[in-house]
Amino acid sequence: MTRCAVLGTGSWGTAFALVLADAGSEVTMWGRRAELTEQITTEHRNGDYLPDVLLPESIWATTDAAEAMRDADVVVLALPSQTIREHLQRWADLIPAQAAVVSLMKGVELGTTRRMSEVIAEAGGVEPRRVVVVSGPNLAPEIAQRQPAASVVACTDHDVADLVAHACATPAFRPYTATDVVGTELGGAVKNVIGLAVGMAEGMGLGDNTKATIVTRGLAETARLGEALGADPATFAGLAGVGDLIATCMSPLSRNRTFGVQLGQGRSVQEVIAATRQTAEGVKSCQSILDLARANDVDMPITEGVVAVVHHGLAPDEMGRRLLSRARKAEAD
Amino acid sequence: MTRCAVLGTGSWGTAFALVLADAGSEVTMWGRRAELTEQITTEHRNGDYLPDVLLPESIWATTDAAEAMRDADVVVLALPSQTIREHLQRWADLIPAQAAVVSLMKGVELGTTRRMSEVIAEAGGVEPRRVVVVSGPNLAPEIAQRQPAASVVACTDHDVADLVAHACATPAFRPYTATDVVGTELGGAVKNVIGLAVGMAEGMGLGDNTKATIVTRGLAETARLGEALGADPATFAGLAGVGDLIATCMSPLSRNRTFGVQLGQGRSVQEVIAATRQTAEGVKSCQSILDLARANDVDMPITEGVVAVVHHGLAPDEMGRRLLSRARKAEAD
Repeated sequence: MTRCAVLGTGSWGTAFALVLADAGSEVTMWGRRAELTEQITTEHRNGDYLPDVLLPESIWATTDAAEAMRDADVVVLALPSQTIREHLQRWADLIPAQAAVVSLMKGVELGTTRRMSEVIAEAGGVEPRRVVVVSGPNLAPEIAQRQPAASVVACTDHDVADLVAHACATPAFRPYTATDVVGTELGGAVKNVIGLAVGMAEGMGLGDNTKATIVTRGLAETARLGEALGADPATFAGLAGVGDLIATCMSPLSRNRTFGVQLGQGRSVQEVIAATRQTAEGVKSCQSILDLARANDVDMPITEGVVAVVHHGLAPDEMGRRLLSRARKAEAD
Repeated sequence: MTRCAVLGTGSWGTAFALVLADAGSEVTMWGRRAELTEQITTEHRNGDYLPDVLLPESIWATTDAAEAMRDADVVVLALPSQTIREHLQRWADLIPAQAAVVSLMKGVELGTTRRMSEVIAEAGGVEPRRVVVVSGPNLAPEIAQRQPAASVVACTDHDVADLVAHACATPAFRPYTATDVVGTELGGAVKNVIGLAVGMAEGMGLGDNTKATIVTRGLAETARLGEALGADPATFAGLAGVGDLIATCMSPLSRNRTFGVQLGQGRSVQEVIAATRQTAEGVKSCQSILDLARANDVDMPITEGVVAVVHHGLAPDEMGRRLLSRARKAEAD
């Protein structure tokens, strides 16, 4: 039986723990707050993030990271992306030497513009061939309800990808293995930014043609960045690319999209954060993604527009006007 | 000034006529019924298909196809796809020898499995280098409201594509030129079938992960068919591929999706047709697309499932079970 440690008790970490348990894996979760780990262990609920879901009884949780990771075959990281380096610096010695380390995070580190898999290798001292990225159209509340879904399990070492895919395969959750870590990871990170843009369009009252166009051109700029960083272009046509992007951009469950809707209705970033008491991932990472694009000489006009709205107070309708007034051209240019 | 004839007075033909007129082109429409052509000419309305839209006054309509096409630089065909051969056999001599002939149709001919551009060349006696396909995320009601949208204008002859793009470029409608006629056309045809499948999932109460997965795997099978027929794979990542697919699959305005929702809720094809008094394009063309796939040895499991539901009475939930029980594998396989 595969022994899995899931570090983080947010909605996606918890839903993925449920998938692992459903697949017959042994699952221990780590969380910072004792009330929550206690609740998971004894009541089989995560009242903070998935209050309506009954978790498998075999899942238990602890506030002791060493205990959670002891003898783990698979260590799953499901923590806020901008805190991961700090966590790993503390935990590097606790990760079992042969364990696969799975990233569920969708972001790019501010300042360094490192992808999460790079931060894991660097700060956690994990060999790159043991770092795995799981990403796809996986809205956590639906996964927790065991609705049919598929995802990409990417690792440069195919055997490690296979181990993780086997540990999480259930009748409802269908993992597809891949070796393109860079592309899988970028798809997950940039989609949050594009989701904000689609939300803004929705908030401004624009329709499905406009939103589908933003998704398509957003996918194109994601793929351009990916190509510059050595990703396989085919990844962006798959579950971790267009699949995740569609789920994020079209679902009322997506936090990035919902945040964008409020910006499109004329609220400021500060007002939305104050009202929702959370910051969408795309708000946090749009700047680092744009920095990464600029460092690699890649044109990302939608990401640029989102940064201008989020960080420089540009009005969303002005962003729309700028995008539409670009010179006409062939689609592939 | 470009002189355009739009043949057909359905919602997309009428909306495209409005775009052409907005772009400064001279537009004549042809329709079968005198009451409707009269209404378009004198009241500047199409009460049957876009009742709430005021058309530009410069558009006029006639029941005389010869009059509509006289001296046209661009002839736009916007007719039901399964009737196009019959129409063109009557009209072949009326199409001006140098005119670009634009297809707005999304389908594959039953029996022959010919794409619309092939039928136009064959039955209309039009040189292939003058046949143009316009396709993208273009839900007609939103286009008619002048919401921002983009589309692909594809022709093997780049100058002809450019002529048509110029004739329809407005501040709200952004044409991108391309040379991949086959891919542009297939994207538009297969998306109707995938839209039915997404609608069925919705009708069965499934969520956005499932729908995004169907869209993604639907795109993959579209691209497989495209590659077998010589299309450029990049087309499917663009507006006429994923863009059109997203608009169709996510919008409540899409007839195919709406039709699928009703099938997913347990109604039969006959019941839905009786209730809505129309047949969605995907219902009409799923069989010819599957025939085309089989003739080219291409695996299209979603299209196959839709054909089984539409033509052989398979229950939509059984189709879902079949798709989910396929062997696990690498995404690219």
